[in-house]
Amino acid sequence: VVTLPEGYSFRALELSDYAKYIETLKVLTTVGEISSESFAELFNHWKEHPHIYQPHVIANTEGLVVATGMLLVERKLIHECGKVGHIEDISVAGSEQGKKLGLSMITGLTELAEKQGCYKVILDCSPHNVGFYEKCGYANSGVEMVKRF
Amino acid sequence: VVTLPEGYSFRALELSDYAKYIETLKVLTTVGEISSESFAELFNHWKEHPHIYQPHVIANTEGLVVATGMLLVERKLIHECGKVGHIEDISVAGSEQGKKLGLSMITGLTELAEKQGCYKVILDCSPHNVGFYEKCGYANSGVEMVKRF
Ligand SMILES: CC(=O)N[C@@H]1[C@@H](O)[C@H](O)[C@@H](COP(=O)(O)O)O[C@@H]1O
Ligand SMILES: CC(=O)N[C@@H]1[C@@H](O)[C@H](O)[C@@H](COP(=O)(O)O)O[C@@H]1O
Repeated sequence: VVTLPEGYSFRALELSDYAKYIETLKVLTTVGEISSESFAELFNHWKEHPHIYQPHVIANTEGLVVATGMLLVERKLIHECGKVGHIEDISVAGSEQGKKLGLSMITGLTELAEKQGCYKVILDCSPHNVGFYEKCGYANSGVEMVKRF
Repeated sequence: VVTLPEGYSFRALELSDYAKYIETLKVLTTVGEISSESFAELFNHWKEHPHIYQPHVIANTEGLVVATGMLLVERKLIHECGKVGHIEDISVAGSEQGKKLGLSMITGLTELAEKQGCYKVILDCSPHNVGFYEKCGYANSGVEMVKRF
């Protein structure tokens, strides 16, 4: 169950979240310039594949985005045509630190994945975030490798 | 460029690969019982999302699957609506070890991801496979965390 400060909500991303969603993701990494048209195009692409892309946010008492998180559900052949949840792009606004919104986001997305029958949920993080994810009930299971272009 | 033993090919998965595709994936992990109907249903699901799911194989001189690999292309908001390639479910038939088919599969999928404009490709592996992926041009970039149900 997702615990949140009073008046905060865990919900699906909405088109009107444009500005605050982008602002919040800038805490995580490079975002760059994204027009409202580009955002709408991406939002619609995600909407066309609702079983795969499940972007979520935590909104504050004013309904504004203060945390982001994506659940991507992958259908595999292994594990009897099993599903795997991938948690991506977790970010919490700087001014909202200390309210356990990261934990709430991970709990919410993990519950969604379990309800949809995923046999596991995975995510990649930097070594200094391992302790946080352990508090969320996750365990170290391997190494992330990357090739950048 | 993908180098392969003479007569071998790197190609998209086909419906008729059913038996050998499953057999090859059993080298990687638990597969379980999968009927040809379940396989066809999953194959068609993947086909309905061709920009996302790109399952590939290496076939031997007889056209039979001897290695598997999935490229999953994720559309993100970060990095100016960037794309990330996820490499999944790499497996090589036991009898085909020593022919560098793993390297060929990774090279093939990585090239596909680059052509489609991914800003990076990532994959998760066990610590004892890090050396292999380094030979493929990949570098350690983080920790994989998991929660199993
Ligand atoms: C659990 C979580 O949120 N992990 C994120 C991942 O989803 C995101 O895509 C990546 C961006 O890093 P990049 O800007 O170096 O590609 O950072 C972290 O690994
Ligand atoms: C690069 C590569 O092939 N990685 C695979 C991953 O794609 C696969 O889904 C997983 C299955 O493990 P599981 O059976 O424990 O879920 O094993 C490895 O991490």
